[in-house]
Amino acid sequence: MFREDIKVLDCTVRDGGLINDHYFEDNFVKNVFKAVCASGVDYMEIGYRASKNLLSPDKFGKWKFCEEDHIKRIIDGVESNTKLSVMVDIGRVEKDDILPCEDSVVDMIRVATYVKDIDKAIDLANEAHNKGYETTINIMAISRAIDSELEEALAQIEEETKVLAVYIVDSFGALYSESVQKLVNRYKKFLKTKEIGMHAHNNQQLGYANTIQGIIEGCNYIDGTIYGIGRAAGNCPLELLIGFLKNPKFNIKPILEVIASDFLPMRDKIEWGYLIPYAITGMFNEHPRSAMALRKTSDKDNYTEFYNSFSPTEVE
Amino acid sequence: MFREDIKVLDCTVRDGGLINDHYFEDNFVKNVFKAVCASGVDYMEIGYRASKNLLSPDKFGKWKFCEEDHIKRIIDGVESNTKLSVMVDIGRVEKDDILPCEDSVVDMIRVATYVKDIDKAIDLANEAHNKGYETTINIMAISRAIDSELEEALAQIEEETKVLAVYIVDSFGALYSESVQKLVNRYKKFLKTKEIGMHAHNNQQLGYANTIQGIIEGCNYIDGTIYGIGRAAGNCPLELLIGFLKNPKFNIKPILEVIASDFLPMRDKIEWGYLIPYAITGMFNEHPRSAMALRKTSDKDNYTEFYNSFSPTEVE
Repeated sequence: MFREDIKVLDCTVRDGGLINDHYFEDNFVKNVFKAVCASGVDYMEIGYRASKNLLSPDKFGKWKFCEEDHIKRIIDGVESNTKLSVMVDIGRVEKDDILPCEDSVVDMIRVATYVKDIDKAIDLANEAHNKGYETTINIMAISRAIDSELEEALAQIEEETKVLAVYIVDSFGALYSESVQKLVNRYKKFLKTKEIGMHAHNNQQLGYANTIQGIIEGCNYIDGTIYGIGRAAGNCPLELLIGFLKNPKFNIKPILEVIASDFLPMRDKIEWGYLIPYAITGMFNEHPRSAMALRKTSDKDNYTEFYNSFSPTEVE
Repeated sequence: MFREDIKVLDCTVRDGGLINDHYFEDNFVKNVFKAVCASGVDYMEIGYRASKNLLSPDKFGKWKFCEEDHIKRIIDGVESNTKLSVMVDIGRVEKDDILPCEDSVVDMIRVATYVKDIDKAIDLANEAHNKGYETTINIMAISRAIDSELEEALAQIEEETKVLAVYIVDSFGALYSESVQKLVNRYKKFLKTKEIGMHAHNNQQLGYANTIQGIIEGCNYIDGTIYGIGRAAGNCPLELLIGFLKNPKFNIKPILEVIASDFLPMRDKIEWGYLIPYAITGMFNEHPRSAMALRKTSDKDNYTEFYNSFSPTEVE
């Protein structure tokens, strides 16, 4: 698949940070940055920009806050055409945390939101746009969105913002190819001047497949993470995505190298990928938080009891 | 997806045996059999039926030969509606190894073949059919099949056999959803009285996705293995497949239980699943044997050199 318009965004450090409270060593982040730049990937999202007034810096590593100086230490001296992105969460960032773009090394700000918070997301995206950033709005938990509310949100985004793209975020890894198809077409119906993005999770081993499906349907902003690192079952693996995209500007080899040097050791320290509890939350269209909690207990492989906890008799 | 015609076949022990030369303990095979029966899966393929005149019993475990007595020791005393299958390879079985069906505990014989051996496959399938078995022909390495040769083979199978189904076997894990779509439609064009089967490998994390795609396109014979065990990157995970199929006859819980009790320990002893060398052979549409060989060396995580070994300059 070679479509010049396709932009690939690596969110290894940002989504991976959800496993370890954003405590990555500089050396690891720098190796990721070098590999992503060398691979020709368009954007790298280096973390969240959260406010230290709202979240305690004692409880999170530096990639939850992405201070300019910390980012500079990573990127200094690396030749790069890759743009930098940070994600902002509604309620966890203050407008003052967003510097004018000309004073920042960040190029893009992505606003993560649930459908219900769309007005706040639009406000934040417009703030970032007005300060000179490229912007996107990423609608999380899309597999739970109510059709009419989603349509209203998309119409508002189209009308009231200048975001480059609006993402389908399959936070629960619950989508199948047919649901991707329907969602992209629903997005297209409302977004006449914006691109559509795809951010897929791998609970049911469909992260990469759903991403390809999104591309086929017309998504042009595509997220991946190296070796699929990311919350719970992780994400669409960047190396597979680059193997699929035929644009000659991409080079898979730096990604393969950093997997061997940095991700195999990291996988021994923190856990992500296909595991039965994450498959179960995906099947039930549930947030993986209960599965992540289970994995920290001695019951981590008691799958039947965990499965039963979602069965209808337990809910009524 | 609830389509009454869909038949699910578990080939855990058969395809899994390709990792360990078919040396599974009886206890493991029995636990798999019990779980598969309890889950309501239609067929279980318990191994290969090879001839001891052609392959040395010193080099392979018993599930390469599937003697009737060995199978009986597994199934005795287990209540079951699940039919039993064995696979035969052309050139590795003699006709005498195939007893009359009424003298056997086996219900189905599946003939694995490359397109070039289709005449031999038809002969073997007819032999098994005439002895009273249900039969299928499984066309391996389908991602390398030449269109005209495949079409001729399909026309012959339609004309000359009574097989229930003809399988698409993505031995290299190289298919994408669009190629699955095209293949199923090509099969449909020639197979007017046979069902179509799907056997997918997981090199690019598409085993399950391609299986769903096959189902959507009309495949009714569907292979899976527990926890995705199988050669190299393994297969479509049976637990995900059962999670997707809505036929109330299926029960996922016995599969989840046997994963915890038998497959987690097994995974510590033998290796399968998503690993970069298997992803690379999938991307290059190559047999995974070079990747499997690499994984047995100290170079097992030297991905770049392995990737380079497939690049055009090395081939010319």
